[in-house]
Amino acid sequence: MNIAIAQSGGPTCAINASLVGVFKQGLLTKEIDAIFGSINGIEGIINDELLNLKSMIKTNEDMELLRQTPSTMLGSCRYKLPEMETNPEVYEKILHTLQLHRIEIFIYIGGNDSMDTVVKLSAYLDSVQSGINVIGVPKTIDNDLPVTDHTPGFGSAAKYVSATVQEIIRDSSVYSIPSVTIIEIMGRQAGWLTASTCVLRANGEEAPHLIYLPEAGFSAERFIEDVRKEMAKHKAVIVAVSEGVILPDADEFQSGAVDNFGHKYLSGIGKYLEHLVSEKIGCKVRSIELNVMQRCSSHICSKTDIDEAERIGRHALTAALEGNTGKMMYFRRVSEMPYAVTIEMTEAENVANKEKCFPREWISPDRNQVTDTAISYFLPLIQGEVNILMKNGLPVHFQRPLQMR
Amino acid sequence: MNIAIAQSGGPTCAINASLVGVFKQGLLTKEIDAIFGSINGIEGIINDELLNLKSMIKTNEDMELLRQTPSTMLGSCRYKLPEMETNPEVYEKILHTLQLHRIEIFIYIGGNDSMDTVVKLSAYLDSVQSGINVIGVPKTIDNDLPVTDHTPGFGSAAKYVSATVQEIIRDSSVYSIPSVTIIEIMGRQAGWLTASTCVLRANGEEAPHLIYLPEAGFSAERFIEDVRKEMAKHKAVIVAVSEGVILPDADEFQSGAVDNFGHKYLSGIGKYLEHLVSEKIGCKVRSIELNVMQRCSSHICSKTDIDEAERIGRHALTAALEGNTGKMMYFRRVSEMPYAVTIEMTEAENVANKEKCFPREWISPDRNQVTDTAISYFLPLIQGEVNILMKNGLPVHFQRPLQMR
Repeated sequence: MNIAIAQSGGPTCAINASLVGVFKQGLLTKEIDAIFGSINGIEGIINDELLNLKSMIKTNEDMELLRQTPSTMLGSCRYKLPEMETNPEVYEKILHTLQLHRIEIFIYIGGNDSMDTVVKLSAYLDSVQSGINVIGVPKTIDNDLPVTDHTPGFGSAAKYVSATVQEIIRDSSVYSIPSVTIIEIMGRQAGWLTASTCVLRANGEEAPHLIYLPEAGFSAERFIEDVRKEMAKHKAVIVAVSEGVILPDADEFQSGAVDNFGHKYLSGIGKYLEHLVSEKIGCKVRSIELNVMQRCSSHICSKTDIDEAERIGRHALTAALEGNTGKMMYFRRVSEMPYAVTIEMTEAENVANKEKCFPREWISPDRNQVTDTAISYFLPLIQGEVNILMKNGLPVHFQRPLQMR
Repeated sequence: MNIAIAQSGGPTCAINASLVGVFKQGLLTKEIDAIFGSINGIEGIINDELLNLKSMIKTNEDMELLRQTPSTMLGSCRYKLPEMETNPEVYEKILHTLQLHRIEIFIYIGGNDSMDTVVKLSAYLDSVQSGINVIGVPKTIDNDLPVTDHTPGFGSAAKYVSATVQEIIRDSSVYSIPSVTIIEIMGRQAGWLTASTCVLRANGEEAPHLIYLPEAGFSAERFIEDVRKEMAKHKAVIVAVSEGVILPDADEFQSGAVDNFGHKYLSGIGKYLEHLVSEKIGCKVRSIELNVMQRCSSHICSKTDIDEAERIGRHALTAALEGNTGKMMYFRRVSEMPYAVTIEMTEAENVANKEKCFPREWISPDRNQVTDTAISYFLPLIQGEVNILMKNGLPVHFQRPLQMR
């Protein structure tokens, strides 16, 4: 029997660790011969673009390197499977590739869009009695998947974001004049990553003084009031804001500046709030976007996150071998102190295309902070450091051999 | 005898290590009683705002924490001393504070603007036969000070930038469609930090495929041509561009604002080039600003940099004790393989208000890359990792006690 693995959606620091988990479990399973990697998610299956992973990941060091390499080693896709009725050809192509290579298990590592693929594909493969099992492994820095306590990739992103915000706090406090620093953090619909900066309070930091999440609603007037209040207490006010925070008067998101082509600059919420503070308060103000560094800064990944990501990959293969299909693996937190999770299984359709927002009851009444309960939730996820292999003063990344790129 | 230390200019990851160096050497020197820290650079001396460092930095662990804490623990300033003739009152205030506290040595850690202060202040203190010595310790992530082989703070910034660019390379390579990623890196007049990304070639990376420095001149047309050429060879083209790169036809990218020293505030070359690629080539393109993270990401600082920063601080105090004044300490590279530097002394006026640009002969003929010689220059500066003390999964920072903030 052969198996195939693919990675999908936005990159994280942990998605390659899940790949390593499936791969390691595959090596330990006698009945498994080839382990294929599909290039660019499900597209590699559709187009029959597969790599033989055993000839690429050859040593324990290769696996260690892969664990510390961010992004998706196999590439990714944003491709959404069409409905079977409207486009059966795609499904037939997939079946053809899987049968051609005697693939009996397909593990798909991705977010809620990828779980949609798991649902549709497993239903189709069942309907034609192919005997091929499909299992989903969650990943996303957004932490917005239902059912699971948290998602692989989130802990590393949260660790990077909080460590970086702490450094920005130091950087912001050097001058004698009052200032406001606005840090824009990823999360379109869900504010988990922005909220996670509250962990700094566990280390005695007072900042971020204000935390704004998409779930809390937002008003520009209230924001300016909040900032004024904090400026009365702190010389350097630090604001963490989720990119998904939306202003009712969204047109104002354009800075008004025009480039050489006459395009208006579309800027994010951070830049917008910077201009707002400048106009309404007139103090020193800057905005900082943590950008893709939030999802790829493996050099400060969470050991808890990377270890869990590998472990859930192993469990996914075991579940598929036991005959399960159309499921997603997930974490259940069984103990807070000491922190412990078990890995369970749910129907992928419980997760596909759904989002889990930050709990309302963890948002402060003023809607500009999060409660201490949130700290207890987040802290275990950022614990531990991976001993990163370095060369020439830089982390070493695993790369596909040139002829396989 | 008492001594005073101050920190000035933009924050770095190494400026607190230099403070630790002066402090440690002070502890070892029997004739030194109090070691004062001046709050917000020279302003603390003018306004008599001093901290007793011995009552604040009490243990070896405090010193270790301070070494791993970014930014300036004593605060900073951008204050430029007026000419003595036009404003003698400021100088008299300084003299008053120094004499009031029996301070006979003043160590100023900063960049080329701060060396202007060292020049003026030492001349004044000499002219009134005060017997007070002033010594400058260099620091800047820009690496643009004359005389010295490199500046404390630069190695850590370069290590962060290259490690992060490597992660962005992985992040950029996941999708099957061609793309261009533009990374904007700090450096107003000098492209050292942007150029330092060439070290990735030592680890087998082909990217950044294009490197643009202020020293090389820039043309939008040539840039688009360069990008097209690289797109023919690589699916994901990575461009590193210095914030100081100026387009002859893009005045609006400079805000026009100037700081106390007459520096222009530059911003937005990355965003500008993003729009240019979008308009002229029409492919997927994004720009990323590494922002203040370049100067404060202590969690991935260079051990070589931090150790050297401490060492040059120690030497500064020794030089002052030996009767020197109006000088700046600097590094001379005495051997490339193995890397070795000695610490020497130069007149501060050789450095004050001057800049050292990236060497023309290290820029490729096409003006869009740097030569291998540059790799040999940069590599030693980013070597080694500091064993960072962590708590709750986050680096621990040294902070002034609340009543001393």
